[in-house]
Amino acid sequence: MSSTKAYAALDTTSPLVPYTIERRDPKPHDVQIQILFCGVCHSDLHFVKNDWGMSTYPLVPGHEIVGKVTAVGDHVKKFKVGDLAGIGCLVDSCRDCDNCKEGLEQYCTNGWVGTYGGQEKDGSGATHGGYSKSILAHEDFVLKISEKLDLAAAAPLLCAGITTYSPLKHWKIGKGSRVGVLGLGGLGHMGVKIAVAMGAEVTMLSHTASKEADAKRLGAHQFVLTSDAEQVKKVTGYFDFILDTVSADHDYNSYLALLRSSGTMVCVGLPTTPAQIPMFNLVFGRKSIAGSLIGGLPETQEMLDFCAEHNIVSDIEIIAMKDINTAYERLEKSDVKYRFVIDMATL
Amino acid sequence: MSSTKAYAALDTTSPLVPYTIERRDPKPHDVQIQILFCGVCHSDLHFVKNDWGMSTYPLVPGHEIVGKVTAVGDHVKKFKVGDLAGIGCLVDSCRDCDNCKEGLEQYCTNGWVGTYGGQEKDGSGATHGGYSKSILAHEDFVLKISEKLDLAAAAPLLCAGITTYSPLKHWKIGKGSRVGVLGLGGLGHMGVKIAVAMGAEVTMLSHTASKEADAKRLGAHQFVLTSDAEQVKKVTGYFDFILDTVSADHDYNSYLALLRSSGTMVCVGLPTTPAQIPMFNLVFGRKSIAGSLIGGLPETQEMLDFCAEHNIVSDIEIIAMKDINTAYERLEKSDVKYRFVIDMATL
Repeated sequence: MSSTKAYAALDTTSPLVPYTIERRDPKPHDVQIQILFCGVCHSDLHFVKNDWGMSTYPLVPGHEIVGKVTAVGDHVKKFKVGDLAGIGCLVDSCRDCDNCKEGLEQYCTNGWVGTYGGQEKDGSGATHGGYSKSILAHEDFVLKISEKLDLAAAAPLLCAGITTYSPLKHWKIGKGSRVGVLGLGGLGHMGVKIAVAMGAEVTMLSHTASKEADAKRLGAHQFVLTSDAEQVKKVTGYFDFILDTVSADHDYNSYLALLRSSGTMVCVGLPTTPAQIPMFNLVFGRKSIAGSLIGGLPETQEMLDFCAEHNIVSDIEIIAMKDINTAYERLEKSDVKYRFVIDMATL
Repeated sequence: MSSTKAYAALDTTSPLVPYTIERRDPKPHDVQIQILFCGVCHSDLHFVKNDWGMSTYPLVPGHEIVGKVTAVGDHVKKFKVGDLAGIGCLVDSCRDCDNCKEGLEQYCTNGWVGTYGGQEKDGSGATHGGYSKSILAHEDFVLKISEKLDLAAAAPLLCAGITTYSPLKHWKIGKGSRVGVLGLGGLGHMGVKIAVAMGAEVTMLSHTASKEADAKRLGAHQFVLTSDAEQVKKVTGYFDFILDTVSADHDYNSYLALLRSSGTMVCVGLPTTPAQIPMFNLVFGRKSIAGSLIGGLPETQEMLDFCAEHNIVSDIEIIAMKDINTAYERLEKSDVKYRFVIDMATL
């Protein structure tokens, strides 16, 4: 085991504090990474507060990790010391179920291992995330990051990027698709950029008029203020696909009405209240509502390569490690454009 | 206008009674049909009782209509006198919107005309259904019925058949697909027959143990008693596709759990209570829940041809017209295997 400096939550209510964790010993297929930047995902905050009832403490959040390879095991083929590398939401899975074999490790039927808050499959204890100096994982769970991208701004691609890329790809969004993106936050702003790069006609759906200029700057072709009945009427029955990035409770039916026949609304947020949907709203128009969870490892690499090709990164605000608790307070008020990224040199 | 004998509901509460309706004058593209058999769909009962708040009276139900062509207009190309023909749920649509142009008249964005309870586009008044001696419609809304099929048992294909065929086709069910059919009634029993003929592995999901023998007789490869936790456990995460034919209120989540990753549950019933779905149940597994409504005209013809090729008809109980009110009482108790069909010679 090796000691690593980190920031951890020690219980559900206290602020994050400096903490030293033990990482497991490296194995022949492992890649060790010096963490340079780590994005701050809203899930980090949910885990710290145990909102989903599955947290264990001490908990070191962070699953938007980028850095430099500092060591590789004897059997590692994909990486060498000095390479840029990233780790997203998963560090292991069963690798044996149908989903793992298809590269859909995020749907591993035997349970994947989260980058933090999971349990190492070798029994060495809890996994710890990217709010730390270094991390290691099997090379199959480590991604290549292009030198072309701004490294700090590339960190959020590992979660916000793949979470929006995966459903857009799975539902075959491209030239000719009319896409609505609901919610302009960490996920929504990536959804706009990626859908635009895929060739879709993209409309930002937001209840905040002041977001119009930013939506257009990010590439959205249209902005619809969802509190304005006249604007909403114009896009009723209009979209082939709606990417719903909202995590707060909201009424799904008013957005289902914006889908054309055979359209699909895919939700990536996890509101606490169940969706209430009269079946009439799906039957009349053969509409679908679906969910999507991050992405598998091959698709995450594909997304990173796509972003390098199209020069897509996140809009970020770089913070020092010691300011994480203030950042969480601002995150709760959606006061960030559009992702905090921790400069790990400040730890 | 021409007078036609029929059976009609005159208000929401009285039994159906003999009634004479006026059909509009035939036009150059019209096909006139002597109705020989008409299926009794649960929607007929909903309309008679105005359960959906859109009924007008007098109301002549019936949209599973088969019979013989007795006259054709000068411009009719598809039919000649003496042909077998059918009419389903639609007798007209705008024919100009994107959906109509794609042959998805059931999703006509300007509103299609129902076979009964609709309004003729020429202003000649309400449309009246198949509980009558004859009917006429534009040839584009008239279907060819194969001489190979038992005519009475073919009638329910016009609604129960296409309602189940359309989603199975749209979601590309075929060899290798694991399909669950939920509910063994008029729709469910057609869903089993059609999914089996498409080459799928079909499982009947029912909470009634006594239905197992019938499900197997209809072609289902497996039967799962949904009240038996052990049986349900065996098919958790198993199905690529679930066809949910249940119209009564039910919990969708227990069936979503039976889908494998990327699976889809399509609902064709319209329960009165909205579905309550925690988004977690869709996100973890990239699952979809969708609706589907009957089918368009080209697909309805395709279904009829498919059924002729595979010798598929409905299991029916033939009744006399005067027994319709008793049949409705039995229908409300699901006491029919699996469709009542009225012998119109008895009118």
